[in-house]
Amino acid sequence: MDHHTLVRWLEAVLIIFALIAIWFSASNFSSVKRFLIGRPMRTSELHAHHNKLFWLIALPILSADLYSSVAYGPESGMTELAGLGPDAKWLIFPITISTIVLLAILIVSYIMGILAYPNGGGAYAIAKDNFKPRWVSLVASSSLLVDYVLTVAVSVSAAIEAVSSAYPVVAPYETILAILCVVILVLVNLRGVAESARVFAWPTFGFMICMLILIFTGFFDELRHGFIQPSTPSFGTVPEGLTTLLVLKAFSSACSALTGIETISNAVPIFREPQQKNAIRTYIALGSITAVTLLGFSYHLYAKGVTPDPHNTMLSQLTGMYFGHGILYQVIIWFTFIVLILAANSTFTGFSQLAAIVAADGFLPRSLTNRGDRLGYSNGIIVLASLACILIISFRAHTNALIPLYAIGVFLSFTVAQIGLMRRWKRVKGSNWKVKFTINTVGAVITSIVAVIFAVTKFTGGAWVVLVVLPIMIFISMSIHSHYEDVAKELRIDMQTIRPVASDVVTLVLVSGVHRVVNNTISFAKSLDVDPIAVYVGFDEQSINKMEKKWKDWGTPCRLVVLRSKYRSLLEPLNRLIKTIEAKQEAGGHIHIIIPQFIAHKWWHNALHNQSALLLRMWFIRNKDIVITTVPYHLHK
Amino acid sequence: MDHHTLVRWLEAVLIIFALIAIWFSASNFSSVKRFLIGRPMRTSELHAHHNKLFWLIALPILSADLYSSVAYGPESGMTELAGLGPDAKWLIFPITISTIVLLAILIVSYIMGILAYPNGGGAYAIAKDNFKPRWVSLVASSSLLVDYVLTVAVSVSAAIEAVSSAYPVVAPYETILAILCVVILVLVNLRGVAESARVFAWPTFGFMICMLILIFTGFFDELRHGFIQPSTPSFGTVPEGLTTLLVLKAFSSACSALTGIETISNAVPIFREPQQKNAIRTYIALGSITAVTLLGFSYHLYAKGVTPDPHNTMLSQLTGMYFGHGILYQVIIWFTFIVLILAANSTFTGFSQLAAIVAADGFLPRSLTNRGDRLGYSNGIIVLASLACILIISFRAHTNALIPLYAIGVFLSFTVAQIGLMRRWKRVKGSNWKVKFTINTVGAVITSIVAVIFAVTKFTGGAWVVLVVLPIMIFISMSIHSHYEDVAKELRIDMQTIRPVASDVVTLVLVSGVHRVVNNTISFAKSLDVDPIAVYVGFDEQSINKMEKKWKDWGTPCRLVVLRSKYRSLLEPLNRLIKTIEAKQEAGGHIHIIIPQFIAHKWWHNALHNQSALLLRMWFIRNKDIVITTVPYHLHK
Repeated sequence: MDHHTLVRWLEAVLIIFALIAIWFSASNFSSVKRFLIGRPMRTSELHAHHNKLFWLIALPILSADLYSSVAYGPESGMTELAGLGPDAKWLIFPITISTIVLLAILIVSYIMGILAYPNGGGAYAIAKDNFKPRWVSLVASSSLLVDYVLTVAVSVSAAIEAVSSAYPVVAPYETILAILCVVILVLVNLRGVAESARVFAWPTFGFMICMLILIFTGFFDELRHGFIQPSTPSFGTVPEGLTTLLVLKAFSSACSALTGIETISNAVPIFREPQQKNAIRTYIALGSITAVTLLGFSYHLYAKGVTPDPHNTMLSQLTGMYFGHGILYQVIIWFTFIVLILAANSTFTGFSQLAAIVAADGFLPRSLTNRGDRLGYSNGIIVLASLACILIISFRAHTNALIPLYAIGVFLSFTVAQIGLMRRWKRVKGSNWKVKFTINTVGAVITSIVAVIFAVTKFTGGAWVVLVVLPIMIFISMSIHSHYEDVAKELRIDMQTIRPVASDVVTLVLVSGVHRVVNNTISFAKSLDVDPIAVYVGFDEQSINKMEKKWKDWGTPCRLVVLRSKYRSLLEPLNRLIKTIEAKQEAGGHIHIIIPQFIAHKWWHNALHNQSALLLRMWFIRNKDIVITTVPYHLHK
Repeated sequence: MDHHTLVRWLEAVLIIFALIAIWFSASNFSSVKRFLIGRPMRTSELHAHHNKLFWLIALPILSADLYSSVAYGPESGMTELAGLGPDAKWLIFPITISTIVLLAILIVSYIMGILAYPNGGGAYAIAKDNFKPRWVSLVASSSLLVDYVLTVAVSVSAAIEAVSSAYPVVAPYETILAILCVVILVLVNLRGVAESARVFAWPTFGFMICMLILIFTGFFDELRHGFIQPSTPSFGTVPEGLTTLLVLKAFSSACSALTGIETISNAVPIFREPQQKNAIRTYIALGSITAVTLLGFSYHLYAKGVTPDPHNTMLSQLTGMYFGHGILYQVIIWFTFIVLILAANSTFTGFSQLAAIVAADGFLPRSLTNRGDRLGYSNGIIVLASLACILIISFRAHTNALIPLYAIGVFLSFTVAQIGLMRRWKRVKGSNWKVKFTINTVGAVITSIVAVIFAVTKFTGGAWVVLVVLPIMIFISMSIHSHYEDVAKELRIDMQTIRPVASDVVTLVLVSGVHRVVNNTISFAKSLDVDPIAVYVGFDEQSINKMEKKWKDWGTPCRLVVLRSKYRSLLEPLNRLIKTIEAKQEAGGHIHIIIPQFIAHKWWHNALHNQSALLLRMWFIRNKDIVITTVPYHLHK
């Protein structure tokens, strides 16, 4: 591990600390929290009536994730080919066409999904419904969760790269700006902006129009200057060093443009009636516009001979060629930025909802099901942001470096969902089930082949990480599930036979002298109507004698036991005393220690007082079956 | 702040986290701690009999800090002059001679200190004894503490630079190796190696012999090849650009060789009788050998025309010239390394003892007075190491970059001590008191002039940091003191009138359902002989109805209060309930909440369970005057 790798990891760890700290302090400082994320919302507001959406509005809202990928998909495909020189550039055509064919197959398969699960069924739900062994659905959920993390990292990085293409001055700060975007997305999502808010329709619409303008401008340009221009590379040549592996690699990179296709099928309930028909209509419209954009954009990149440049995205280069760097250029760049950020934003909802569903089934920590003040799954949001930040920092916000890890997860979950649907058609049957079965069979075969292609071609580039992480995640999910089942079994009681019964309690009160705090603590102990024993731990004879005398002078408010500590430890002599009591006590009895705790007026004053009460409590609670009572004493100064 | 500065700070923060984590985990994992720092020691072992030391053995033991500085003092003086070219090199003579005169004055002044405080009195003790306003002694202690931190950073950096001169391959890892040395020193000091252990005599002796061999070899070389060699720069020329400021700057850098001079005067009690005479003898011997070394070493550096090289210390260059890179070279380099590390090591004792003395007076957090398992002041050790690590990382372990911050503190505390002694002689009088008074007056004048020279010449180089930090430290110390006094006043009670009295208690038990944990908790509450009220917080009507039914089926073990939480918060409805109870309760009454806490079998299982009990407890303890009892339930799986 070289120095820079180390530094990156250090930074990543710090960012996560910072995010946790933000979250934690936001939870504690109510006013800051209110300012950042708004008033808390009632649970009942969750089911407040949503206006159902007209499909043409739903289209842009649900397509940010898929459609925004055109900003980096073709570019990452061409970057793979760049090593072979300009002679290889024409290969983007077969690659783009294959991608579009794949897109068509996926859309048709997903339409089958909508027919099967009109209430919205993600890959996890489909797998859960159609496979007995739980690990199959965990393959679907884990790979989707991993890919959501990558979507955030890739989209945010691509967004920042778009901006830094236009403003090279920000280029050195790409990583920190990307992190900043993630932090802002965290706040926005903790506020809980509804994913289906109409306001989200316009940027994506705007971006679609921008892309279409760009493509039409391209064709006008080519009509005027010829479809083969001086800058156009040769077509059909076989460049030296061309291998099938390389072409497949370029294809898998280009396929990163297909992620996000599952969004519509999860969101059927937000459409106006007839919901299924409208959702299907949206799928077809989105597929068509994406296909046109991918093909047109790739063609112009080829015709203009655009070459990958790490400091200037291809979209920015092409826009610059057609429009110069004027207002239209700015508009396109900023629409690209906004749409990519929206794509990341929609992933936050996707991730936290899926994590909550899986957690509710007991396969992830239950805290992922907690709704925050604004009804979003706050913990899932924080987890996603932290993981995305690690990726952004590790890869210094370079989209092309992240692409090799990307999209495998999605295609794995596509495959699981398709096979699930196949099983469903076979089981449920229904009208035209054989057609549907065939469509999903084709889908399953194709997506599994693509997944294998991804795994093989991108393996050394980073895909191995995903292939290592997935089985680990599945294993951990299974362990979590069995832990929850064990605990549930352990806690279950027979309500008729097991009922609370009082038993013997020995109450010890730790005292450190005779002063107001001790007075307060012993007053409480006496109020409990038990006979408390005061315990004093002395480090030397002198202080012990002094304490014994003081106690007498104080009128011996209760019995005092003095423990000698040769090693200046409170724990060790107390532990000895407790063992003695345990040995004498009958079964079922309780040992109860009352500890006073100083609460300073200003938080930093706590550093000036021994936190031994806190440490003792932690140790006893963890290691012994002892009840600990803390009596706070709030200092006035 | 550029990127690298940021990265350095990030790293520094992480190292400190790591040190705290090490310390914390070492406190928790007894076996690891035992392995690293050994069995705990009894308080009584503290005063175990020490063999008093013969002065010739005490000499090297107490001189590591002072004598090791010859390895970097002359070099940092010459580095300041390097910008003027070879013509300025001869200036090292007046500078070295001034340094030696200063050394002589300091030693004589410190001998006066020994005569005044034969039981050892550092600058802080002298100032405390002779000045009424406490801030004067805080100037002495704070500046010494700051300089101790710098001593560790400078010595360790110089040690690593010595090694990387011999082995350039380690040069890129200087910072991390320096940090490693500090971590090892922490462990050694937590083990609590006695500062006066005889074994520490030999490396310093060895280094002294090495330096003398080097100096004598130099003279033989000059006898054979002439005292003016081809490489010797011109003498007495006035190079262009020479300013008084620059000469004074070089002088103040060279004076970094004088730090550590106070060690012997603090350690009088470890000498054999007659203690004072032996300590004085040691001072004179150490002064002589240091003077010879500084002068001889500087002369040879000049004669050989050695030039500063950031990758090769001057000591290493000179040794290489005389002995090549054979065994003798290796011996000298490693002795240098060991002695510099020993210098840092002795500072650990100095810092933690001084911090403990100041803390015992109530001017620093009291936890600095706690003795660890091995009787060392563990917290002081950790604080020193953390601060030194920040410096090492901030300055990338470059000795010459650290020098400008160094030695001001020492000279400030020297001045305070000298003025304190002056006041003492005037007050106490005694034999020859006028002579002693005169000596300390001269000392005070000289050291204060030197301190001012330091502050002015090194101000922009970094000394301003020290001059900003010191008043802040003194202010904080005064605030700490007044906080401790306020608290003591607040806690004091009249033992005759204020005595513990029982009063009314309302006991609430938080329940989340009917299961083994709830059974356990209510059993405990019933054992207390109070009438507990079970409190259930429901997020929706369905779960509330279910709970109410279950409670009835369970035979209503105690009264159940159900709270509705519209905002999915436990805290908010509980807080409402508590306010209602408070309003009804008579003054002096207690509210007592019993909270069950899940303790998982494996620590990482805690991530799988809601930590709401913990968070609730934290909030109530901090914000309300409420007694909290935690009933642990230890899961078996």
